[in-house]
Amino acid sequence: MPVKKGENKKAHPSESEIRQDIVTGDWVVIATARAKRPDDFVSAEQPVQEPKSDPFEDPEASGQEKDVLIYRRDDGDWSLRVFPNKFPVVQNSRTAKDLSEGPYFAMSGVGHHEIIVTRDPKRSLALLDTWQVAEVIDAYQERYLALMNKKTVKYIQIFHNHGKGSGASVLHPHSQLIAIPVVSPGLSLDLAGAERYYRSTKQDVFSVIVAHELEARKRLIFENEHFVAFCPFASRAAFEIWVVGKRHNPYFERITDEEKFACAEALQASLRALHQGLNDPGYNFYIHTAPCDGSDYPHYRWHIEIIPRTATWAGFELSTGIEVSTILPEVSAEFLRKQLQ
Amino acid sequence: MPVKKGENKKAHPSESEIRQDIVTGDWVVIATARAKRPDDFVSAEQPVQEPKSDPFEDPEASGQEKDVLIYRRDDGDWSLRVFPNKFPVVQNSRTAKDLSEGPYFAMSGVGHHEIIVTRDPKRSLALLDTWQVAEVIDAYQERYLALMNKKTVKYIQIFHNHGKGSGASVLHPHSQLIAIPVVSPGLSLDLAGAERYYRSTKQDVFSVIVAHELEARKRLIFENEHFVAFCPFASRAAFEIWVVGKRHNPYFERITDEEKFACAEALQASLRALHQGLNDPGYNFYIHTAPCDGSDYPHYRWHIEIIPRTATWAGFELSTGIEVSTILPEVSAEFLRKQLQ
Repeated sequence: MPVKKGENKKAHPSESEIRQDIVTGDWVVIATARAKRPDDFVSAEQPVQEPKSDPFEDPEASGQEKDVLIYRRDDGDWSLRVFPNKFPVVQNSRTAKDLSEGPYFAMSGVGHHEIIVTRDPKRSLALLDTWQVAEVIDAYQERYLALMNKKTVKYIQIFHNHGKGSGASVLHPHSQLIAIPVVSPGLSLDLAGAERYYRSTKQDVFSVIVAHELEARKRLIFENEHFVAFCPFASRAAFEIWVVGKRHNPYFERITDEEKFACAEALQASLRALHQGLNDPGYNFYIHTAPCDGSDYPHYRWHIEIIPRTATWAGFELSTGIEVSTILPEVSAEFLRKQLQ
Repeated sequence: MPVKKGENKKAHPSESEIRQDIVTGDWVVIATARAKRPDDFVSAEQPVQEPKSDPFEDPEASGQEKDVLIYRRDDGDWSLRVFPNKFPVVQNSRTAKDLSEGPYFAMSGVGHHEIIVTRDPKRSLALLDTWQVAEVIDAYQERYLALMNKKTVKYIQIFHNHGKGSGASVLHPHSQLIAIPVVSPGLSLDLAGAERYYRSTKQDVFSVIVAHELEARKRLIFENEHFVAFCPFASRAAFEIWVVGKRHNPYFERITDEEKFACAEALQASLRALHQGLNDPGYNFYIHTAPCDGSDYPHYRWHIEIIPRTATWAGFELSTGIEVSTILPEVSAEFLRKQLQ
């Protein structure tokens, strides 16, 4: 990554900092652009508040950044728009400053942070028409392609926070895209695992998974020509769902138009099953895809993971990284399948 | 581990299952002993309830398991007791059944799950006398030593959930100990990192960290003869604190009596600073120590990590494993230090 070495001066106070854990090699972002004073963390009962206004209803009027992408309907109104996050986790900059200290490595938090907003302030993806969800995936791809070759970008994380406990701070449905100068630890684990599996079996692990789920069927939720949705065997959360393509393809950005519609259908069926069966629970979903760091990842397959917020990570999960779930994925899947009948 | 191969029949419904993610190699526990039906996950407004009674005030009367350890005061009343969890994540059993399915690996969830309870139902560790916290550490060690050589135990996780958002379901202060048949992914990352650091620098990474923190002092919160408490450079959470020994020792269970008191003092100072500065926030703390799997881990150092629950993990954190913090560890540390003056 283009880190200016030896500079070692503090970033501008509004810039964020990416620090590396010297033991694990993991990364954290200290987003001082969203800085709070210590007093802001003082524990207090949070009053339940209706938001005063919807900042995404009329993004320009509410002082959002200028659109980088807008899709319009036949009547001229917008149906989807993308603009930079007003409170970005990382900042657009041509180079990263070295902010290392003694034995520790750190650099300024360069990258891109964008918001992808659909028109209707109340209808979540579960309730949209399938073509509207396909449009969202289209926008993901378009912005991915626009950012993936930037000098400071090695990985692009696309994700969506929905509802209670998901961390969403604006109710208007929106996804986010964060392009960062490091490959995330979460993805590195995936990539290393896929590579290890291939070396020991000469098979792509996602091919094995998809073939087994289609045969076993007990964790299956939805299937069409190009995609399959199922509760993974080692689900970390109750009702966790993965949406995986049937064609081997490590790179999300190479999704075809036909696949886009099929993917939208599978994603939406999954979200609808959750919405209907669990009374619109909070969830996060995100795309895991091969990094755009110039390397090839032939044995990986991009996919979507949906994590309902049905449990709190407590001391055991935090300390071990082992999630405790209280329902079998097979039971979750059966319940979710019924919602789609 | 002593997995009975080829048996491949389902565990007893009340037993839990340990499943391995085929891609990452990570583990999850499906704790069917705490089983819920799908309907139990239906999203609803949670009424804020005062607990009806304290199950740990008189553990025998409330139907807890029999004590495995009890410390008494001079007046005969108990000051600390340890008993098996009534709703264990893993179950005591001499062997693990193979519960693999097709390409996926799983086994029954064997191990031990114990609760360590202090006498006073209202006073958290931050408010106890230092000798009482030392007694807690004493009990941790005593139970660790009692379980570490069991055939099904490879790793012992000791942790403490406190207050809002921590996942604690009983208000009476208590810690938990879970002995499991696999080394946790969280610890594996630590161990691999410590080993990698040693190979490339011929220095123990925790020696480097402690030396640098004592020199830089800006992230320091507390120091005594044997321990140091500081906000780590790459803090994952606002006000995260690590308590690390000055003596190199990979194995928590080898803590000396003198060190135990010094450790209690450092842990308590850290918790008191959080309690006082942030109005008794929720937090988790846990011990990271070398596994008891028969191998040596000469370049690791056991320590305590305290994670205040000041933020929600949202889609970005879940998908990337990169935490976003909004305050510099140096600012957190300065604020916490002031609480102890």
